[in-house]
Amino acid sequence: MSVITHTYRGYGYERIETPCVEDIRRLTSDDGGENEKLVYRILRRGLDAEILPGTETARLVDLGLRFDLTVPLTRFYAHNHAHLPTPFRALQIGPVWRAERPQKGRYRQFTQCDIDLLGEPTVLAEAELVEATMAALTALGLTGLTVRISDRRILAAMAAAVGIPADRTPGLFITLDKLDKIGWDGVREELVRRGFTDAIAQRCLTMVGQLRETSAGRRWNDLPAVLPELAGDVVADLTLTTSCLSAAWGEKSWEFDPTLVRGMGYYTGQIFEVAHPASASSIAGGGRYDRLVGKSLGRDVPACGFSLGFERIVELVERPARPAKTAVLVDDDVPLAEALATARRLRGDGEPVEVVRRRGSLGKQFAQLEDRGFTAAVRLRQGEEAQTRPLGKSRAGS
Amino acid sequence: MSVITHTYRGYGYERIETPCVEDIRRLTSDDGGENEKLVYRILRRGLDAEILPGTETARLVDLGLRFDLTVPLTRFYAHNHAHLPTPFRALQIGPVWRAERPQKGRYRQFTQCDIDLLGEPTVLAEAELVEATMAALTALGLTGLTVRISDRRILAAMAAAVGIPADRTPGLFITLDKLDKIGWDGVREELVRRGFTDAIAQRCLTMVGQLRETSAGRRWNDLPAVLPELAGDVVADLTLTTSCLSAAWGEKSWEFDPTLVRGMGYYTGQIFEVAHPASASSIAGGGRYDRLVGKSLGRDVPACGFSLGFERIVELVERPARPAKTAVLVDDDVPLAEALATARRLRGDGEPVEVVRRRGSLGKQFAQLEDRGFTAAVRLRQGEEAQTRPLGKSRAGS
Repeated sequence: MSVITHTYRGYGYERIETPCVEDIRRLTSDDGGENEKLVYRILRRGLDAEILPGTETARLVDLGLRFDLTVPLTRFYAHNHAHLPTPFRALQIGPVWRAERPQKGRYRQFTQCDIDLLGEPTVLAEAELVEATMAALTALGLTGLTVRISDRRILAAMAAAVGIPADRTPGLFITLDKLDKIGWDGVREELVRRGFTDAIAQRCLTMVGQLRETSAGRRWNDLPAVLPELAGDVVADLTLTTSCLSAAWGEKSWEFDPTLVRGMGYYTGQIFEVAHPASASSIAGGGRYDRLVGKSLGRDVPACGFSLGFERIVELVERPARPAKTAVLVDDDVPLAEALATARRLRGDGEPVEVVRRRGSLGKQFAQLEDRGFTAAVRLRQGEEAQTRPLGKSRAGS
Repeated sequence: MSVITHTYRGYGYERIETPCVEDIRRLTSDDGGENEKLVYRILRRGLDAEILPGTETARLVDLGLRFDLTVPLTRFYAHNHAHLPTPFRALQIGPVWRAERPQKGRYRQFTQCDIDLLGEPTVLAEAELVEATMAALTALGLTGLTVRISDRRILAAMAAAVGIPADRTPGLFITLDKLDKIGWDGVREELVRRGFTDAIAQRCLTMVGQLRETSAGRRWNDLPAVLPELAGDVVADLTLTTSCLSAAWGEKSWEFDPTLVRGMGYYTGQIFEVAHPASASSIAGGGRYDRLVGKSLGRDVPACGFSLGFERIVELVERPARPAKTAVLVDDDVPLAEALATARRLRGDGEPVEVVRRRGSLGKQFAQLEDRGFTAAVRLRQGEEAQTRPLGKSRAGS
């Protein structure tokens, strides 16, 4: 966490804290996509011991646990924007919750480390955020990282091209997101279950296939041929972001995946995921969400963010070697204040020092201390000089 | 947070994480005292949209948000004790929740920094925990700290002496805790409202008065005269803990307050609060809770802990001077990859570097950057050498 924080501070991101508990309406306004079904809902305070007949469950709830750090951030920004610089660089580290059956490497409570750049309309935001994310992951010793990149506007243009109205795209995106899991037939079936016609489902899948082909050779310029409705700056912006990635991390640091979705409903532009060869799911993700701040503030503010999945990254990071630490081994007849004072003096040298009471066989206790990673023991006995003994294999010969 | 963490690590405390969400039964088993009324309760998942008639509110709830870090710790210890050393030193930093009307300096979500020593039956635990807490607060630059100290067994002996059965002491303690707020008459009235007779309420208050007198002159030895039922080791243990405090922090670092209560129901021995001259409420508190781990583990494990109230401490700590930071000021025609590369190079010197787009009047933008604490600006223009300009009053003359 300190490595990540230090890296992000280097880019000017400042730590802010937002509450874990949010107004339930804000957590169920469609911005969270599928995650909104997974919100832990908090009972109103002061309810009677028995619920009145005919009460709707929703009426019992006024708060919920946040499913990400972005929704709370936009509320924070709406409340505090008058005192914040433009653009505003925010760093958040905190728990989020999703009431799902946890898979390997996923928990119902997990920690996200988010950086967000609010008030920056250009791809400076995207390029900087993805670079800072890569810098943090690299500082943690991770290698072989790949940034998967796309733009929500590609999927939106595709939906428009096949005749799906904008208000039905969230369902379409959720289903497309499952392509790698449930396959082409699974996606077709789910689209039909969602009420799309066979013909539209088929046109979607054909177009997804064409889009995937353009991505294989990074043929941005073919995109407009497949999707004439696509705004010209989508391709220009993608080219710019990826050229920055190539310059900083090499050509192989990224790949174009036009069918990338990301779960959240609030994305409006470029979207990203970072893959690591040893992790089945992505370890970081983010994107632009230009219309989320407006829901709190009343006017839109361009915004872009990137989130690290802390627990998944912890599993990939090699633990640092244990540093030196000393045990002060104290006989029962040594005055407690003296034992604490000895430990305090030794702590002045900068190493951790633990006070340990003498118990049982001395040899066995030394062995236990070695097993626990102590590199030295200072033995205190009433009326005798303190004796220091090195511990651990590395010092056994000294 | 890093100062606190560093200090506690020096004493051998290792960071652990426990979940914010707990089984509701564990949060409402009387261990939390008054705080149990303030638990945010979480609705079961998968409930129908309408509640069946006659449903008890309690049946709708299976989880709650923790009100402290101690209850989750004891569950953690019960699950993991086989792999943990004895004694086990735990450091936790995390949010807790109490659904109360927030007062100044108190929030419904707040952060606690806890150290706990599990498996240590002697006052080594108390003495070390209070020393480590004082060391952390001192490392943060706080001075004039006072440790208020007592022992729950004093209040328990008093209750026994006036004829109050053990199962009614929690209510007694909660009322006594309000003495400074509601005064002697207020306490008397509340005790009678709780169903104690006038005579018992009066005897309680007389005894509290006598106990307060013994504390004024630190006359431990008078305690047994007031409370013959008091176990002898209570006074011996208090003498030992306070002698360690005197040795490390001076005679004036502590005071004896036999009417100290602490809100939690789970304390069984010595209890502490740390006062700061500029804070109306205590900024840290703790104590021994030898019978809480047993509720998860099935057998009692001696335990003692100390908790810092993070938000209250933040208000007292002087903010460190802002470090140097550089702005890379980029004209719109400079290639983005080049701007990011320049910032990346400058970051190699160790200072934070922010990329800022050139906008409006140059003089005004320099002034804004100075206001935001930037100490230098590097101006990038297409086809020109980068120009560095020192910013800020300290550097204006250079």
